[in-house]
Amino acid sequence: MSSPPSLRDFKNKGRLEAFSDGVFAIAITLLVIEIAVPQHAGGHLLSELFKERPVYLAYFIAFMSIGLVWIEHNALTEALERVNAGFLRLNLLLLLLVAFLPYPARVMQEYLSLVDTEHGGERTAVAFFGVVLFLMSLMLIVLGRYAEREGLFGGDAGEKRLEDNRVKYQLAPSLIMYGVATLCGLIQPYLGVILYFLIGVYLFLPVNTVRRLLGRKSNS
Amino acid sequence: MSSPPSLRDFKNKGRLEAFSDGVFAIAITLLVIEIAVPQHAGGHLLSELFKERPVYLAYFIAFMSIGLVWIEHNALTEALERVNAGFLRLNLLLLLLVAFLPYPARVMQEYLSLVDTEHGGERTAVAFFGVVLFLMSLMLIVLGRYAEREGLFGGDAGEKRLEDNRVKYQLAPSLIMYGVATLCGLIQPYLGVILYFLIGVYLFLPVNTVRRLLGRKSNS
Amino acid sequence: MSSPPSLRDFKNKGRLEAFSDGVFAIAITLLVIEIAVPQHAGGHLLSELFKERPVYLAYFIAFMSIGLVWIEHNALTEALERVNAGFLRLNLLLLLLVAFLPYPARVMQEYLSLVDTEHGGERTAVAFFGVVLFLMSLMLIVLGRYAEREGLFGGDAGEKRLEDNRVKYQLAPSLIMYGVATLCGLIQPYLGVILYFLIGVYLFLPVNTVRRLLGRKSNS
Amino acid sequence: MSSPPSLRDFKNKGRLEAFSDGVFAIAITLLVIEIAVPQHAGGHLLSELFKERPVYLAYFIAFMSIGLVWIEHNALTEALERVNAGFLRLNLLLLLLVAFLPYPARVMQEYLSLVDTEHGGERTAVAFFGVVLFLMSLMLIVLGRYAEREGLFGGDAGEKRLEDNRVKYQLAPSLIMYGVATLCGLIQPYLGVILYFLIGVYLFLPVNTVRRLLGRKSNS
Repeated sequence: MSSPPSLRDFKNKGRLEAFSDGVFAIAITLLVIEIAVPQHAGGHLLSELFKERPVYLAYFIAFMSIGLVWIEHNALTEALERVNAGFLRLNLLLLLLVAFLPYPARVMQEYLSLVDTEHGGERTAVAFFGVVLFLMSLMLIVLGRYAEREGLFGGDAGEKRLEDNRVKYQLAPSLIMYGVATLCGLIQPYLGVILYFLIGVYLFLPVNTVRRLLGRKSNS
Repeated sequence: MSSPPSLRDFKNKGRLEAFSDGVFAIAITLLVIEIAVPQHAGGHLLSELFKERPVYLAYFIAFMSIGLVWIEHNALTEALERVNAGFLRLNLLLLLLVAFLPYPARVMQEYLSLVDTEHGGERTAVAFFGVVLFLMSLMLIVLGRYAEREGLFGGDAGEKRLEDNRVKYQLAPSLIMYGVATLCGLIQPYLGVILYFLIGVYLFLPVNTVRRLLGRKSNS
Repeated sequence: MSSPPSLRDFKNKGRLEAFSDGVFAIAITLLVIEIAVPQHAGGHLLSELFKERPVYLAYFIAFMSIGLVWIEHNALTEALERVNAGFLRLNLLLLLLVAFLPYPARVMQEYLSLVDTEHGGERTAVAFFGVVLFLMSLMLIVLGRYAEREGLFGGDAGEKRLEDNRVKYQLAPSLIMYGVATLCGLIQPYLGVILYFLIGVYLFLPVNTVRRLLGRKSNS
Repeated sequence: MSSPPSLRDFKNKGRLEAFSDGVFAIAITLLVIEIAVPQHAGGHLLSELFKERPVYLAYFIAFMSIGLVWIEHNALTEALERVNAGFLRLNLLLLLLVAFLPYPARVMQEYLSLVDTEHGGERTAVAFFGVVLFLMSLMLIVLGRYAEREGLFGGDAGEKRLEDNRVKYQLAPSLIMYGVATLCGLIQPYLGVILYFLIGVYLFLPVNTVRRLLGRKSNS
């Protein structure tokens, strides 16, 4: 408005994607360095590893959550025709949440561990993780809305793609799901963890794909 | 001069961008692994997490600083038509600063922490961080000047883009702002931190974008 | 089937590759941060470093395993004409295994170390690592099968490329090899490690390339 | 030979570059996480940071070494027309060295630290680092030779580019320089460190660029 669009618009969305991919890839891969190797377990290594199962579950949930946000982000930028400075900045806020997620994931791993006998703090740890998941879903919706208002989809073809993505990924329902899961986590932390897991699995394996895969496998 | 330009010029700026994006993305994502999980907090986890707020503030400042330098770097290389060996080398010096920033960020996190009761060293920690921010802004200006002198913008269109970027990102003012904030940090460390934060927010949220977003949101 | 293909198919496989490359590159580079620097070795540093040789071997095996999976993944996506949402999701499962591998690698490093005099747990550690290698090979086959059934190779040219890749990388044999090596590791852990190493070297240096290189070097 | 070239050649060198850029970028950025923050230094933080100067020097040397290898790798792949499976594999060996370098860098940081009063091991630490630098330079030459023999430069234009690169980066001299520096490090460790530093600066700032920059700056 106050500045001509030519000043603010970049034609090239490649670097936005490359930088975002980098942050997503690093955040998702860094999750593993927080899993502690059992020390001096000797012959009991297998049972010690088995005791760490809440840690693996937290790892799996965090991995799937970042992975799903990446797929949604991919779908969004796929539909864009161009990006502008405002989109880059809002995208930075999404990446701030993505890059931050390993921290609540670590807190959750620490406070759900069965190895440590102490208790307390599970509620806070689970809700802290859920709030960040909720904010990531929210930020994705904000990004999509912003792109739509700024006309970054570049006409009908882009808006069609956007519509498809919306149908496909159901951002608003996932926002509600993560909100409910977080609230459940405040009351019963393990219920919250199970809900995060189920939401991840539900978003990851849409009924259609499963049916199709099973159908085709049984034919071969 | 002493060597023909064909020897020194690469047409392809893609790998420069990919490598730079990688370093930016990793530096910005590594910041989180330095935030310590409160140990054995039990039921006091929430208050323990809350005590870490200067650490989150330092994280946020470092994240925004790297993110803003990335946006400025993006704008600069966007305007380039080609790069040469000299540009690659100067760019490496910028990346040296970017990759190094997590260290002063960690020092600042450590010495601003409210959990540790010891005091002293805040001044040094805050100024150390500011000096690196100042050098990053300086290096961005050097890169732009070098590209201009070597004619890497490839004629009028590129120089127009450069000019736009200059108006937009105001590199020189941000240099002065970081310099002033660093000097303030030497006198009153918390004032320095607040200034880093405000500079980040100011650069991140230009008045135009905020006005536009708010204006459009109230219409819907 | 239940949804039209236009909804589910992305033309652009670039971001899938960029994100996957990022995860592969980070996982392969993170392996090194787990190797501990000998503390206070003084003049005995050389012998202390030498004692760590099982750790270097584990590092080498993990590096080569991820590198080979990357080469195979590269060959697979090279042959693809397009990707769809299902492929992105299955690919995420492969990346989950790739990103997870540093953990069993670390467990193996810890429990094969000669510096620590304790024994026990080598069997579990070696088999744990092998199971993840086995699953990675399996997942690569699943990805290839899925792409074939969904017609992502885009006709004859792509299927020809796929066939070539199959001949070249021999996915099924490597699956069997890793399965056998894991079972051997359960009986005699050091035999398992040696087998992982030999499989890596065998896959890395195909007879043809070695013969060709030697042949040409002796001509010069 | 035994397999037709169509089986072994990939047209697309993009993913090789993306994966390599990722590994280079991560290795170069990971160097910083090994620099320890002085603990409980209080008001002595500045002097404690200053005591760490051999650590910063080691960091700087490692950063420049990886950065220069990246620039040389960039020049090499820039000249390539296509890559084949053999090149991917040899490239993986170079990346193995690049990804490994943070380990000897860490050893060198640890054993050159002035904070720790113990002595001994400097010789081993410095030579260990030099051997890896030497091998990286060697591997770059091997990669170039291999590409030339396999005809990956695609005719005259590519070989011309290769020749230019050779003149420019002087791989063979840098191999000899690193070899000499490593041997010096075995006799006098600090001499070795200074030589690594000078080689880095020499390769980083070629006389031409410096002269040009100074000449132009004095004109303005």
